[in-house]
Amino acid sequence: MSFISKLANATKKNGSLLCIGLDPNPDLIPKIDVLEFNKAIIDATHDLVCAYKPNLAFYEALGIEGLSILHKTIEHIPSDMPTIGDAKRGDIGNTAKAYAKALFSAFGFDAATVNPYLGFDSIEPFINYQDKGIFILCRTSNKGALDFQNLCTEGLPLYEVVAQKAREWNIHGNIGLVVGATYPEELKRVRSICPEMYLLIPGIGAQGGDLASAVKYGVDARGEKAIINVSRQILYASSGKDFAEAARNVAEKIRNQINSYLASPMEAQ
Amino acid sequence: MSFISKLANATKKNGSLLCIGLDPNPDLIPKIDVLEFNKAIIDATHDLVCAYKPNLAFYEALGIEGLSILHKTIEHIPSDMPTIGDAKRGDIGNTAKAYAKALFSAFGFDAATVNPYLGFDSIEPFINYQDKGIFILCRTSNKGALDFQNLCTEGLPLYEVVAQKAREWNIHGNIGLVVGATYPEELKRVRSICPEMYLLIPGIGAQGGDLASAVKYGVDARGEKAIINVSRQILYASSGKDFAEAARNVAEKIRNQINSYLASPMEAQ
Repeated sequence: MSFISKLANATKKNGSLLCIGLDPNPDLIPKIDVLEFNKAIIDATHDLVCAYKPNLAFYEALGIEGLSILHKTIEHIPSDMPTIGDAKRGDIGNTAKAYAKALFSAFGFDAATVNPYLGFDSIEPFINYQDKGIFILCRTSNKGALDFQNLCTEGLPLYEVVAQKAREWNIHGNIGLVVGATYPEELKRVRSICPEMYLLIPGIGAQGGDLASAVKYGVDARGEKAIINVSRQILYASSGKDFAEAARNVAEKIRNQINSYLASPMEAQ
Repeated sequence: MSFISKLANATKKNGSLLCIGLDPNPDLIPKIDVLEFNKAIIDATHDLVCAYKPNLAFYEALGIEGLSILHKTIEHIPSDMPTIGDAKRGDIGNTAKAYAKALFSAFGFDAATVNPYLGFDSIEPFINYQDKGIFILCRTSNKGALDFQNLCTEGLPLYEVVAQKAREWNIHGNIGLVVGATYPEELKRVRSICPEMYLLIPGIGAQGGDLASAVKYGVDARGEKAIINVSRQILYASSGKDFAEAARNVAEKIRNQINSYLASPMEAQ
């Protein structure tokens, strides 16, 4: 099933625009195996979310063993739940083809994040997987985003040029954008440039983004097409043995908060 | 030993500014194991180069096994020869820290390439490894580089703003830039903005960059600080059993050509 169908089904079934970032940091998780931690989080939350988003950095930092954990984590995610490989890859065409193969074939992700700096030929090998979702970094949630993404280029900030290009490049309808919740005005601008595209919105919780504005400005005209990612606030809700239950409670609360900000709140089916 | 010392020693010992990109593509290499291929290439060329640069995409595309091959490849490179992990990573600070750990601790690379799109906090965790080299993508060698890198921002093309910022950020003296050989005018501009920084220059050979201009515009005033990368032209010099010998012959020819373009040609010691 395509990423978009999986996402639509999971969103509807769970009445949720919430995505959980599976970014296990051994310094922060309770004293159990990283894989067991991930499995417990997934088991406790899979009826509350629309997607899971593992960030590859946290697995690569653990060496080969970490990548084996990532494989097993993906296997543990219910097959009807979409997975987004947060890899932020970007390389020249020949190499981008290898990265797309790594993420979509070797790991089997349903979607991936990519970096736009190298332009169209760095993204084309990804969008050629027409059943997969490709989220292009547009306006990221961090402070450093200001260094280049907001520079004025030809009358517009760079991130808006990226949004416009992404729209042009979206010939297969499988491109979305990453826009941080920490800068609501920018999120609003991107939504107005790309009214029909999926937006992946990190930055809620530990990063300080405001959930109400993320929902208000992130969703499309029908109150859809926003994927609101939360990682640390859910994963590390408790450092004790009750971490999974605590994660579930926070995830449920955030899912419900998101719904309360929608004009037509979703309900789990 | 720091990346910069290793690089200086290898450059001097082998009289070489040539770096070989270890990017094995199973469709193009002779019918042998990828690790055996890499080992044969390294054995045949390590007295001709100043560094090796494995691009992680080609290993990730082979799954977990590929990453094990990458580990073993790095182990096989003589310990006094610098290794550059061509990963082009870029993520928010907390995540960039995990990527830096992956590349510098888990894989043990002496240097890595990073993407500037997320700004300073995405690069800071890398440069904090003061003994390592960090090459920031500036003006890449591909056609898509024109999409964003050459946009005029505040009177300058974006890649020049990146070069200026990189120079500002170079407080530990371990930042270099990636500038493709395929656009010699841009290379000249970057060298004039950053007269003292190391430049990693891909794009020679399969990508069509001109070696003479890459050397002329890439080196600093002393004819140093350029790392000229060639991958496919060397790796796939022959598809037969003589691939390693053929790779050596091409590598030797390119090393000598580079030296012939220098005002004061280097000699192996």
